[in-house]
Amino acid sequence: MSDLEIARDGGVLTLTLNRPDRLNPLSMDMREGLIATLRAELMDPQARAIVLTGAGRGFCSGADLDLSTILARRGKVGRQMIAGINPITRLLREIPVPVIAAVNGPAAGVGFSLALSADLIVAARDASFQLTFARIGASPDGGALYMLARRIGEARTTRLAMLSQSLGAVEAEAIGLITELTESGAALPAAMALAHRLAAGATTSLAMIKRQVLAAGNSSLDDALRLETLCQDTAFNSEDFEEGVRAFSEKRKPVFKGR
Amino acid sequence: MSDLEIARDGGVLTLTLNRPDRLNPLSMDMREGLIATLRAELMDPQARAIVLTGAGRGFCSGADLDLSTILARRGKVGRQMIAGINPITRLLREIPVPVIAAVNGPAAGVGFSLALSADLIVAARDASFQLTFARIGASPDGGALYMLARRIGEARTTRLAMLSQSLGAVEAEAIGLITELTESGAALPAAMALAHRLAAGATTSLAMIKRQVLAAGNSSLDDALRLETLCQDTAFNSEDFEEGVRAFSEKRKPVFKGR
Amino acid sequence: MSDLEIARDGGVLTLTLNRPDRLNPLSMDMREGLIATLRAELMDPQARAIVLTGAGRGFCSGADLDLSTILARRGKVGRQMIAGINPITRLLREIPVPVIAAVNGPAAGVGFSLALSADLIVAARDASFQLTFARIGASPDGGALYMLARRIGEARTTRLAMLSQSLGAVEAEAIGLITELTESGAALPAAMALAHRLAAGATTSLAMIKRQVLAAGNSSLDDALRLETLCQDTAFNSEDFEEGVRAFSEKRKPVFKGR
Repeated sequence: MSDLEIARDGGVLTLTLNRPDRLNPLSMDMREGLIATLRAELMDPQARAIVLTGAGRGFCSGADLDLSTILARRGKVGRQMIAGINPITRLLREIPVPVIAAVNGPAAGVGFSLALSADLIVAARDASFQLTFARIGASPDGGALYMLARRIGEARTTRLAMLSQSLGAVEAEAIGLITELTESGAALPAAMALAHRLAAGATTSLAMIKRQVLAAGNSSLDDALRLETLCQDTAFNSEDFEEGVRAFSEKRKPVFKGR
Repeated sequence: MSDLEIARDGGVLTLTLNRPDRLNPLSMDMREGLIATLRAELMDPQARAIVLTGAGRGFCSGADLDLSTILARRGKVGRQMIAGINPITRLLREIPVPVIAAVNGPAAGVGFSLALSADLIVAARDASFQLTFARIGASPDGGALYMLARRIGEARTTRLAMLSQSLGAVEAEAIGLITELTESGAALPAAMALAHRLAAGATTSLAMIKRQVLAAGNSSLDDALRLETLCQDTAFNSEDFEEGVRAFSEKRKPVFKGR
Repeated sequence: MSDLEIARDGGVLTLTLNRPDRLNPLSMDMREGLIATLRAELMDPQARAIVLTGAGRGFCSGADLDLSTILARRGKVGRQMIAGINPITRLLREIPVPVIAAVNGPAAGVGFSLALSADLIVAARDASFQLTFARIGASPDGGALYMLARRIGEARTTRLAMLSQSLGAVEAEAIGLITELTESGAALPAAMALAHRLAAGATTSLAMIKRQVLAAGNSSLDDALRLETLCQDTAFNSEDFEEGVRAFSEKRKPVFKGR
C-alpha cells in the first residue's frame, strides 16, 4: 500500500495521490514514486497519455510537512526542493506525452503547482485552486507562479499569490486556466475519456505541440520558427504522419500507433 | 490570373488569397506572391496599412498539398518550411505597418497561422479558427503556437492544438484573440475601414508599437525600457509627431503624412 | 506644497499625484519626488505596502508637457526618459513591497503606464485607461506595452495601443487587468484597506512573489525553478515564516513583523 497508486489501462498511465483522509498532501513517498515512475517512462516509454489525480474528495492539499520538520529544515530547504519538487515539475512538463490533471476538490499550495504542471486540467465544479504560501510566510514552489503567469497573465497571478485567494473551478474555466469543467465527482471519468482519446492520437504530433508551448514564452519569433521546423520534420518522419495523411486522403479515421 | 490578388487603395495594400472554390488553400503561387510583395514593400514602402483576406466564403483552409507531394517530401520538409511559410510569418510580423486580417469563414491549419501573423484580426460572426495539424500527425507551423500562446495563454493554446478544437469567432473575441467582431459577410469592409483609419495615422508611431509588442514577450523589463527609449526617439523625430503635437495644441485633427 | 503628496500610516506609504485641477499630469516635480521617495525606501525600508493614487477626479492624465518644450526636446528625448520615467517604472516594479494603484478617473498616457507599474490595481467603476500616444505620433513610454502584453495578451495590447481605445474599468476587470472594482469614489479607501492587509502580511513572502512574477515572462522553466529555490530559502529564513508556521500549528492568526 503506497501513498501513490499507479495504474495502466491501454496507453493511459494513471497516477493517484492516495491519502484521501487528509486530502492527499504530497508526501515524500509520493514524490519519490512520481519521480521514479516518470523517469522510467522517459527511459522506456509505455504510456501515450498520463492522468494525475487525487483519491477521494480532494486533489492535493499541499506539502505533507509537520511543524518540527519545517523549522528544522531552515537553511537547507533549497536542497530539499531541488531534490523533491522541482524534478516532478520538470518531468511532468518535459515528458513528451499529454499530462491531464483531474481535479475534484481542493488543489492547494504545491497541489496547485502539480495541477499546473499538467498540460490540460479537467476540474469538477466544486474544485478549487489556492496558493496558500503567503499565509505562512513561505514562497510558492513547484513552478506555480511561472506557469500561472503564462496561463492567466501577471495581474491575476499576483492577485492569487499575494492574497492567497481561492479560485473556484467556474472562474478558473472562464479565465482560461482549465480545459474542461465537469459536474461534481465527474472530473476523473472525463479526464480518463480525454486521456484515452489523446492516447489514440498521433503521439509525436502531440509531443511537438507540448514542446513548442513550453518554449513559446521565452524565445524570440525566430527561435520559435527554428524550433517549429525541427518539430515539423520530426512529426513528418513518424509513421503516424503517414497514416494520418493516408487516412485523410481515403476519408477514413486514422489508426495511430504512437510512433 | 494569379492565386494572390494584389490591390492598392490610397495607403492600403490588400492581399487576397484567391482560390475561393477550395476556400483558399495556401499554394506555392500564393506563398511566392506574398513573399515578393512584402519584400518589395519593405525595400520601397508604399502602404501604410495592409489587409490580408480570402476570397469568397473562407479565409484560408490550410496548406495546398496533395498526398503524394507530402509523403515524397518527408525528410526534407524543414527546408521547405524555411523557404515557404517562415518568411511570410516573419515578414508580416516585422513589416513596420499595421497588418489586419479580415477573416470571413474558416481559418484552418496554416490559415490560422496566417491570421495570427496579423497585428489585428477582424472576424465575421461565422468565422472559425482551427489548428488541424494533430489530426494528421503533423506539427503546427507558421508560428501558430508561439503567437497563440502570447495572445490567449498557454492553457488555451494547448487545448486548441492538442484537441484540434474549432474556435468560433464569438468565443475568439471573448478571449481577446480578435479585435473586432462583425456580422456575417462584413469582415472585409470593417477591416478596410480600420485599415484606412490606420493608414491615415502616425505611421512611425504605429511601427514603434508593433515593434515593442513583438519584443515584449521575451525581453527583460530593462531591455524593454531601452527599446522603448529608442522607439520614443524615433517617433519624436518624425514629421508626424510635430504635426500631432501642433494639432493637439491647436485643438484640430492632425493630418499625418506617414513620415 | 508639492505636486506629490507623501503620507505614512503604519506600514503604508501613500503617494498622491496632486494637481487635481488638471487631473494630475506627471510633472518634473512629481517625477523627482517619486524617484527620491522610492530610492529612500529602497535604502532604508519603512513601508510594507505602497499606495499610488491621484487627487480629485483623476488618476493621472499623462505627461505634463507644453508644446514648445516637446518640440524643443526632439533629438534628446531619450535622455529625458532614461532620467525621468524609466527610473519610476523600474523602482515601482523592483521595490520589494506590494504597490497598489488606486485609480479613480482617467489614467491616460504615462498615467496608464504608472498604474501598470503597480502590482495590484484597484479601480473605481468610472475609471478608464488609455494609451494616447499614437494620437499625437508619439510612442508609448513607462513600460506600458511590455507590462500590458504580459497582463492581457498581445492582441488586446495592440488594439489598445494602435487605436488609442479607452478601456473602461468594468472591461478592465473582465479581462484580468485590475484586482478589484469599486463603486465611484471608493477606489482609494478600498486600496488603503488592501494595503493595510498586505502591510500586516509576511513581507518577505510577498517580495518573493513579486520578484518571481517579474521574472516569469522571460525565463526558461529551469531558470524559474532556480529562482524559486532562492526565493523559498529567503522566505524560510525570515522570522515571519517561523511565526506563520507556529500560528498555523497553533490554529491562531499569525502576527507578522515584516522581517
